[in-house]
Amino acid sequence: MACLGVGLIGTGYMGKCHALAWNAVAPVFGDVERPRLVGLAEVEAALARRRADEFGFESATSNWRDLLSDPDIDVISITTPNQFHAEMAVAALEAGKHVWCEKPMATTLADAERMLAASRASGKVTVMGYNYIQNPLIRHMAALVAQGAIGAVTHVRVEMDEDYMADPDEPFYWKSEARSGYGALDDFAVHPLSLLSVLVGLPVEVMTDMSKPYADRPAREGGRRAVENHDIASVLLRFGEGPSGVLMANRSAWGRKGRIFVQIYGSEGALLYDQERMNEFQLYDRAGEPANHGFRTVLTSGSHPIYGRFVPAPGHGLGFNDLKIIECRELLAAVAGEPAHIVDFERGLAIERAVHAMAQSHSEGRWMKVS
Amino acid sequence: MACLGVGLIGTGYMGKCHALAWNAVAPVFGDVERPRLVGLAEVEAALARRRADEFGFESATSNWRDLLSDPDIDVISITTPNQFHAEMAVAALEAGKHVWCEKPMATTLADAERMLAASRASGKVTVMGYNYIQNPLIRHMAALVAQGAIGAVTHVRVEMDEDYMADPDEPFYWKSEARSGYGALDDFAVHPLSLLSVLVGLPVEVMTDMSKPYADRPAREGGRRAVENHDIASVLLRFGEGPSGVLMANRSAWGRKGRIFVQIYGSEGALLYDQERMNEFQLYDRAGEPANHGFRTVLTSGSHPIYGRFVPAPGHGLGFNDLKIIECRELLAAVAGEPAHIVDFERGLAIERAVHAMAQSHSEGRWMKVS
Amino acid sequence: MACLGVGLIGTGYMGKCHALAWNAVAPVFGDVERPRLVGLAEVEAALARRRADEFGFESATSNWRDLLSDPDIDVISITTPNQFHAEMAVAALEAGKHVWCEKPMATTLADAERMLAASRASGKVTVMGYNYIQNPLIRHMAALVAQGAIGAVTHVRVEMDEDYMADPDEPFYWKSEARSGYGALDDFAVHPLSLLSVLVGLPVEVMTDMSKPYADRPAREGGRRAVENHDIASVLLRFGEGPSGVLMANRSAWGRKGRIFVQIYGSEGALLYDQERMNEFQLYDRAGEPANHGFRTVLTSGSHPIYGRFVPAPGHGLGFNDLKIIECRELLAAVAGEPAHIVDFERGLAIERAVHAMAQSHSEGRWMKVS
Amino acid sequence: MACLGVGLIGTGYMGKCHALAWNAVAPVFGDVERPRLVGLAEVEAALARRRADEFGFESATSNWRDLLSDPDIDVISITTPNQFHAEMAVAALEAGKHVWCEKPMATTLADAERMLAASRASGKVTVMGYNYIQNPLIRHMAALVAQGAIGAVTHVRVEMDEDYMADPDEPFYWKSEARSGYGALDDFAVHPLSLLSVLVGLPVEVMTDMSKPYADRPAREGGRRAVENHDIASVLLRFGEGPSGVLMANRSAWGRKGRIFVQIYGSEGALLYDQERMNEFQLYDRAGEPANHGFRTVLTSGSHPIYGRFVPAPGHGLGFNDLKIIECRELLAAVAGEPAHIVDFERGLAIERAVHAMAQSHSEGRWMKVS
Repeated sequence: MACLGVGLIGTGYMGKCHALAWNAVAPVFGDVERPRLVGLAEVEAALARRRADEFGFESATSNWRDLLSDPDIDVISITTPNQFHAEMAVAALEAGKHVWCEKPMATTLADAERMLAASRASGKVTVMGYNYIQNPLIRHMAALVAQGAIGAVTHVRVEMDEDYMADPDEPFYWKSEARSGYGALDDFAVHPLSLLSVLVGLPVEVMTDMSKPYADRPAREGGRRAVENHDIASVLLRFGEGPSGVLMANRSAWGRKGRIFVQIYGSEGALLYDQERMNEFQLYDRAGEPANHGFRTVLTSGSHPIYGRFVPAPGHGLGFNDLKIIECRELLAAVAGEPAHIVDFERGLAIERAVHAMAQSHSEGRWMKVS
Repeated sequence: MACLGVGLIGTGYMGKCHALAWNAVAPVFGDVERPRLVGLAEVEAALARRRADEFGFESATSNWRDLLSDPDIDVISITTPNQFHAEMAVAALEAGKHVWCEKPMATTLADAERMLAASRASGKVTVMGYNYIQNPLIRHMAALVAQGAIGAVTHVRVEMDEDYMADPDEPFYWKSEARSGYGALDDFAVHPLSLLSVLVGLPVEVMTDMSKPYADRPAREGGRRAVENHDIASVLLRFGEGPSGVLMANRSAWGRKGRIFVQIYGSEGALLYDQERMNEFQLYDRAGEPANHGFRTVLTSGSHPIYGRFVPAPGHGLGFNDLKIIECRELLAAVAGEPAHIVDFERGLAIERAVHAMAQSHSEGRWMKVS
Repeated sequence: MACLGVGLIGTGYMGKCHALAWNAVAPVFGDVERPRLVGLAEVEAALARRRADEFGFESATSNWRDLLSDPDIDVISITTPNQFHAEMAVAALEAGKHVWCEKPMATTLADAERMLAASRASGKVTVMGYNYIQNPLIRHMAALVAQGAIGAVTHVRVEMDEDYMADPDEPFYWKSEARSGYGALDDFAVHPLSLLSVLVGLPVEVMTDMSKPYADRPAREGGRRAVENHDIASVLLRFGEGPSGVLMANRSAWGRKGRIFVQIYGSEGALLYDQERMNEFQLYDRAGEPANHGFRTVLTSGSHPIYGRFVPAPGHGLGFNDLKIIECRELLAAVAGEPAHIVDFERGLAIERAVHAMAQSHSEGRWMKVS
Repeated sequence: MACLGVGLIGTGYMGKCHALAWNAVAPVFGDVERPRLVGLAEVEAALARRRADEFGFESATSNWRDLLSDPDIDVISITTPNQFHAEMAVAALEAGKHVWCEKPMATTLADAERMLAASRASGKVTVMGYNYIQNPLIRHMAALVAQGAIGAVTHVRVEMDEDYMADPDEPFYWKSEARSGYGALDDFAVHPLSLLSVLVGLPVEVMTDMSKPYADRPAREGGRRAVENHDIASVLLRFGEGPSGVLMANRSAWGRKGRIFVQIYGSEGALLYDQERMNEFQLYDRAGEPANHGFRTVLTSGSHPIYGRFVPAPGHGLGFNDLKIIECRELLAAVAGEPAHIVDFERGLAIERAVHAMAQSHSEGRWMKVS
């Protein structure tokens, strides 16, 4: 694989996460050429320079469009706030760059559709930053499901819960504004949906209820201000002829920090996974002696795809940032025309369509098809 | 408290469970007079006699009505199949007996209503066998909620899952017949609802989806037979001005044996409980140093109501049958006119109304009020 | 099996526990005649009478020797403080009664030896109250080990920890006196040893270190008083040609309530068990696909011996007191001349010899053979 | 902090791990200048060149001494097999370089002492690669202990278990040769000792038993060959006036992958940690309402030192390789003359002295002081 030139837009947390991945992908995998970190863009020039030095990028600019016109750059990492994704991704694709874009695609369906259209027109690789699917254990679970290890899937449940909105005394801020989105639904639901998409597919019909744990919050300017969106969403799922399911999201769930709890039940067994313990999953298999049946807690090891690239010894653990390194490696595979385990703009749009259908279901109080 | 005379109808598993409780309630608690085990009824006379000897009952009969006319009997335990509950309970109440009846109340709402009417007319004590609420930890959790230890409740989730219908090769039997009931909904949902009723109250509005993991099963007579009810039910819950919630039930969930997993989120903390580990619960409390915040796994101890009557040392564990002994003690309290922690026919009927509303919601594909 | 007449000495917690077992053994098992509860002895006559009524015993006495001369009594339950065991057990055996005696056997080795001699002379059944071995899961684990399910055992670890002596501000009381015993070693070590005895056998050589977490404690009479025995004991174990091991006991271990954590490693797998979660064990088996290897958490079910007598449904849980009911059933088996899973006086004495060897090892600072 | 020039010796797994850390330390922390990756050494020149390209190093050599003479290099990472550590470290220190050396220090005490002498003579920074101590949770636990959060420490237990030698059918290889070391003791014990050293200090007296789970193994040349060292070691620990403890190590423990389970008991509470779940620890605190006492499972978050540099959201998880990045940052602190959380050659030697004392204790069958 030839050396790829990289441009990075945005140097906040996700920018740093992309930068770490670009630095690590060659040493970790040992089977790709080390990318050339050509340039990064950050709004403020001095900060851009400082980050370029820290992140190991050659040049820095305060104008992201500079990166698009740089012929040494082959791929653009987009890690800016969501409202900029569409403009940047479309421009990058039109400039003939591959695009690695953080989730969600965009703040409106129309923008996301525009992104997909640009992607198709360009023929370039697009990768959405759904890094949870990159966990070697999620891939292994997907393989188990695909191989029929738990038989035909009959039912799934996914819960995504955190507590960053759980404090009722936290003053009102933009996360509670209607214009920031539906609430838990777009903050969270895309992640479980990305997992479902690789594990069992996306739902075709949804029925949603959303609720507000706190009707209002202290306003910074004094008094109280009504909360405009929903911290909690619960969604009944149908998968056509396939399983039924439930998706639950709660960003006001005290005690939950990064929980994404997945339960997949099949005709021959079951699988469990909790993102808060991302280095293990559980498998129940009805074969063998009933007196010894139980959920097995399996630790990540070299028997699972890719883990061994990080650590040779089993059970030593990957971290959240490591998933981004794997995502980066998959992007390189896609660029090389190899099969890649990614959420591209097409699947990314499907995920966002599901989220919008869920929101609409709540508004209309009825089942909604996912178009 | 005066010595109570006991009559027992039915000597299957639940009959045995009642018998054990009647034998144990005085030694365990040490504050009630040992009940007099006057007579039991079982369909077949020889078996009735054998069970009376085993269970320590004085007399045996194959006609349950004999017990009602026995003036030495004050309370009747009804542990027969569900379709007999209404007839027996009404007759017992009319005969001036207190009634301890296994759940559910009856196979139709009309019968359950008749039972409540008889109960009101008689002025006698009625206790439904919802033993899960008797766990000292459930009582403690209810007290924590009531005292505001987790603040205002914002969201609840309850899952009840077992795997006795999980095997797709298991031949069709009566549990899959429509006339046996809705499936998971009435097999299971009453239990989570009994817990909700003591922890946060019953829902006022429900939206249900039910599904069949296996469309048909091998027929004993050859070929395959279509399954007529639903092994899986998922229900969105609304509690009026209170929290939102989700209730899930699955009797085809491989690996789950007696799972009833309860999550209660509040404005100040959260509570978790799993019936499969009935001697512990978890509490998250947002007070104190954030660096030490986490779910605490609390083992049952003498600090929780009643546990100390069973074992003086903490963490030594109660069993499923012990809950029935506590239920028995509560019945004795009710008979003595003391406050009692029970599900009487009134609350029992409320639980069954909720179940029927859930089923109707599924049929009509819309939200349904719980009358 | 003919109806057995029972006499009970002592009505404190363990007396109650025996009484519950005598009441429950026939209903639970359904295959033994209900014992006749003939008489009970308690120091104070009024209390004896009250307990007899509660426990369902026919007569009460304040003189335990009355029970020995009662021809209707076949078996004596001894549940008094340890210093009385030897006298009572020997007298009961000499009176031709079977004996069910709480652990430990006696406060001196000489007394324990006298008990064994009396047992041999009488030819009667003796059962020590080591109820942890009665857990269906412990029996299942013992069977797995015996069948070679984890291959040849290579190493074992047992930890028994509670926190009833953990509070340094707790005033000095008799438990800290030298004459009450070695401390953790005799309070606790007998239990892990009873488990080892059924799982892998008893150690043949031991090396002990004991320590005092608190050198002194507040004296009730003012000032402080030096602690005379050891709340913590750690013991290296050798099993001859067999595995090595470690036994640890700590009665000042904050947070531990009834922990007995057992780890058994073999050439083909491993077994784990924690008494605080007595309804589950864990099994690791190296067979099959490495990518799915892990410790399986197995819940008690009807596939394990005896559990089904208590509850037909799996995973519903036994309690601490239920183990005593099983122990009672085993005693009945022994009386009937059937194979019984018990610790009799012979094995009981072997356990106590091991404890004394451990204490001696600490005193002498060297390895000690268990005679 | 001025830009540091880096030389790396060895490019196997630990070499890669160092390289990843050198690449990531500046982006992750954002408060240090990005190090200049000057040169790396690997035995074979072509491989050296390839690794330099992958790892982002400027130059490559097959002669590690080239790095020592390069004036642009300030610090040398030593990641070669253990027998080369002493020669390289001493030479590097003599060449005026700081040294970051993988554990253990050396294969003999004499070599390790030579390394410490060279370190003292040079006045340069030395850091041993004990990365487990870098876990933010271990630092937090150390701080809790130091602050008295669990009172005076009374007892500690540490278990380190893996299963890479558990298969009895695995042919004999160098790990079972006496000249490779004592077995579990030097493979494993240094890690728990590094943790003890930061949590409660090192033991002053030890009593060891070692055992061989398998007396012999299949020889590759046919027949069987006697195993020469011990896969299992169990050690009683004394800490002078302080707590007692037990250290256990087993490299034949089926099912254990990277377990390092630490239990620390104090007069006011307890702490638990398991390396297999390195993103959580447990704290028991006896303050507050007993009915709510229990071990709290605390997930890593921004409230713990350094974690926030990796991920802003709590509970998202660090991986094993991340600990090396933190270690690298500490080395930079030490070079800058700031306080650093490291195991330097002095503490490294103390750890190795403890290991040797343990081995000697086993040989002599008696307690041994750690000099």
